[in-house]
Amino acid sequence: MSPAFLLYKEKPLKLHDALPMNWEKLFRPRSIAVVGASTKVGMNINMFFPGLVDAGFPGSLYPVNRHAEEILGYRAYPSVRAIPGPVDYVIISVPREHVPEVLDDCVYKGVSVAHIFTAGFGETKTSEGMHLQERIREAIRNRIRLIGPNCVGVYCPGSGIAYMPGQSRTAGDVGFVSQSGGHTSLFVENATSQGLYFSAAVSVGNSLDLGINDFFEYLSADPGTSVIGVYVEGMTGEQGRRFFELVRNTTPRKPVMIMKAGRSESGARAAASHTGSMAGTYSLWASMAAQANAVLVNDYTEMTDFIWAYKCLKGLPGTRAGVVCGGGGNAVWCGDTLGAGGFTLPPLSPETQKSILEFTDAVGTIAQNPVDPNFSMFDPQAHIRVLTTLDAQSDIDFLLNVGVFDFLYHHTIPTGLLSREQLIRDSADRLSQLRKSVRKPFAAAAIQVSENPDIYDILKQIRLRAREEGVPCYASLERMTAALRRLHTYSAGLNGKAS
Amino acid sequence: MSPAFLLYKEKPLKLHDALPMNWEKLFRPRSIAVVGASTKVGMNINMFFPGLVDAGFPGSLYPVNRHAEEILGYRAYPSVRAIPGPVDYVIISVPREHVPEVLDDCVYKGVSVAHIFTAGFGETKTSEGMHLQERIREAIRNRIRLIGPNCVGVYCPGSGIAYMPGQSRTAGDVGFVSQSGGHTSLFVENATSQGLYFSAAVSVGNSLDLGINDFFEYLSADPGTSVIGVYVEGMTGEQGRRFFELVRNTTPRKPVMIMKAGRSESGARAAASHTGSMAGTYSLWASMAAQANAVLVNDYTEMTDFIWAYKCLKGLPGTRAGVVCGGGGNAVWCGDTLGAGGFTLPPLSPETQKSILEFTDAVGTIAQNPVDPNFSMFDPQAHIRVLTTLDAQSDIDFLLNVGVFDFLYHHTIPTGLLSREQLIRDSADRLSQLRKSVRKPFAAAAIQVSENPDIYDILKQIRLRAREEGVPCYASLERMTAALRRLHTYSAGLNGKAS
Repeated sequence: MSPAFLLYKEKPLKLHDALPMNWEKLFRPRSIAVVGASTKVGMNINMFFPGLVDAGFPGSLYPVNRHAEEILGYRAYPSVRAIPGPVDYVIISVPREHVPEVLDDCVYKGVSVAHIFTAGFGETKTSEGMHLQERIREAIRNRIRLIGPNCVGVYCPGSGIAYMPGQSRTAGDVGFVSQSGGHTSLFVENATSQGLYFSAAVSVGNSLDLGINDFFEYLSADPGTSVIGVYVEGMTGEQGRRFFELVRNTTPRKPVMIMKAGRSESGARAAASHTGSMAGTYSLWASMAAQANAVLVNDYTEMTDFIWAYKCLKGLPGTRAGVVCGGGGNAVWCGDTLGAGGFTLPPLSPETQKSILEFTDAVGTIAQNPVDPNFSMFDPQAHIRVLTTLDAQSDIDFLLNVGVFDFLYHHTIPTGLLSREQLIRDSADRLSQLRKSVRKPFAAAAIQVSENPDIYDILKQIRLRAREEGVPCYASLERMTAALRRLHTYSAGLNGKAS
Repeated sequence: MSPAFLLYKEKPLKLHDALPMNWEKLFRPRSIAVVGASTKVGMNINMFFPGLVDAGFPGSLYPVNRHAEEILGYRAYPSVRAIPGPVDYVIISVPREHVPEVLDDCVYKGVSVAHIFTAGFGETKTSEGMHLQERIREAIRNRIRLIGPNCVGVYCPGSGIAYMPGQSRTAGDVGFVSQSGGHTSLFVENATSQGLYFSAAVSVGNSLDLGINDFFEYLSADPGTSVIGVYVEGMTGEQGRRFFELVRNTTPRKPVMIMKAGRSESGARAAASHTGSMAGTYSLWASMAAQANAVLVNDYTEMTDFIWAYKCLKGLPGTRAGVVCGGGGNAVWCGDTLGAGGFTLPPLSPETQKSILEFTDAVGTIAQNPVDPNFSMFDPQAHIRVLTTLDAQSDIDFLLNVGVFDFLYHHTIPTGLLSREQLIRDSADRLSQLRKSVRKPFAAAAIQVSENPDIYDILKQIRLRAREEGVPCYASLERMTAALRRLHTYSAGLNGKAS
């Protein structure tokens, strides 16, 4: 490991000599207190309490606020000490100078885990911030495990834990751990809007105690998590070594996606301003990720795209695609985009070409790869036979169907030829039928070229339904290509082959 | 010029010794006949006649159909000969074997320009197709100028010419010429949905007579066209030389965007199947494009994105960006994406940092570049002052504002805090105010991370309004970065500087 992993800060003294983490108290707490719960609503206020209420937390919820009797129908308490029952987990969102005394109350009360949302500590690099952070350290040493400070903490819908209202209550198998609360929110938003749900998503902030590696280790062992995403700004050398050891041990069982900040100098400098992390050399991270068979992504959309490819296909055995695509110009565009992503489109054998022309409208059909069946694409039987013919050609590894929907939309919806629901159902059903008709891995793109919001909504629903039917379906050729490329690399890595 | 430009087909004999093109007859015809106009409606039928009716063509329209008395309220004629008045322009959509006799009728009638939609000629490489194409050539030699065969022809909304119903009737200053009818339709769809309108868009098909170069020359000279897009699959050496000569002479006056098929081997092979073109070596095209200061794009979305950057900013003097972006993680993402696109984000001077912290909420604000003003971004005065502070720093060339809207949406629309119209108006107004407050070029990204269709619609409208106010506003960081990069390269080329 190179010195690029070295951190800005001194290696901290070990915080807890003898205080093992009890994950049950964090991810399945019987009771949660929110210190600093607000009686107001709005954007720039504490959203943890309304978040927990909205998420339907099934245990005991205690808002703590010196000036309130009741918040959202829950009895409020002036302090953690004043709460009558036991408290497993406390979320702290009060001005920074009050944080140490709240922690003292937590210790008194026997709280297991505290999460500090409040910012203004070590990351400010001011003497006051550093001093307060040291006081926190002393308050919790060997007494309380800590998330933060300076982070949004935990989203765990299966246990009714959300950090703001409106987060999905549906639980799933995606795990995420992040050095940015913003990215945590955005990835949760991005993924849930595309039908992916979470076992847990955690933002770690300054990581005074629990950090990326602790949560990663938990998610790696968690049987309810089948894929893990990580957003990292920077790590110390020791943290980095441990991280890649954990990743290497995880990827044979579940894929790990890493979004690493600091691809460029400007990004690295912004990361330093954000969490005080030195980003390290990106190329070093990329090479460590490749060695550990982790999937490197540039943003959370790419995470979501990869997860769907993985969930539907598990792996992609080769790089040779057989493609069905409506429109000659579109077929060329497909070839170029897939080619730029490292895939090839083998020429079709004369027998395959002849066979395709037999059951499609010969004038207008391009019996090459991509096949453009022209209007025969609207005939379900011809469409399926084109795909099964490609399925039979031995030098093709996987199959794709690409549809640009603007034209179909204009000729069916405004004209009343189909209802929106019919168009959605027919299109998703067709993709499902295509998948069931072939043996090779099958993916699709359902694309719009205009910015028509109605088409957007229809295609979103087509893609969601297709994915439920096992077809990873994408909004653009680029996104489909990138997701499949990452899946191929991951599966080649699993089989011990460099891709 | 390299042999890579060589074409598959023999160099054709010169078709017309003495028949200059009369562009008026094509782009401002007094009368149009559509041969093969259908009495039916649906997807796989002739849409030219309903297209012209829908586009509001102001001259005389003549549907030609042997078996109809009337089509869409217009009297139908059994042949072009039978039409009573003069006919400038004829669109032919009949089975291929009837095309030569229709052309004979056109000659008899004194038609100036014919467009053949029908496919099945030279591009099939069959003896029957080649033979029919030869008959077409003989029929029109020195008598009629021809578009096609095998193409959708002309969209010219200013003259009421569209090739299918539903195309925008609004005229504009974007010109487009293409070797794919599908791409023509898709680019028109993409651009008009984003508020860009056309002087003319033409698909040339097999180019038996008029080809890319002819239409390009027209658009280059046309005072109503201020930017030109071209989609090319392939050209002969002679065509290629002429093309780049035309491009080189055009770019000092108006930008030329080229989407070139054949970036990959698979794309090149698909292009050969589509229009019979040999794609030529992509790297050669790229280098010719660079020498001619043309803007190379990968798809029509990139064309639309570039055009908006050009229309709003005209040029981009340097690569050093000053960025305002809400959210620490987002700021890092901005730095990385802009950095990957070849831009830098200069560090802020201590004075600039100090100044920014004076009028923003210091806890939570990151006074670096990107500046994350945190919740101060919701305060118009603070927001404007942050941007004007960046404007004043001398080593910054241009300014950007990046907003991720999902969070703002969830806290304003479902809660009733703002109406949709208020959110749209306030956001677009803010971008307009920001632009008016600074001297340096200013662009923006208005991003969503979820696939929420309501946010999609709102952001689309914000972007449209911002562009009307002179702010090129994009749906993603990647699209903003790519468009600005291309604009910088174009303006550096104009000033004789390599970028």
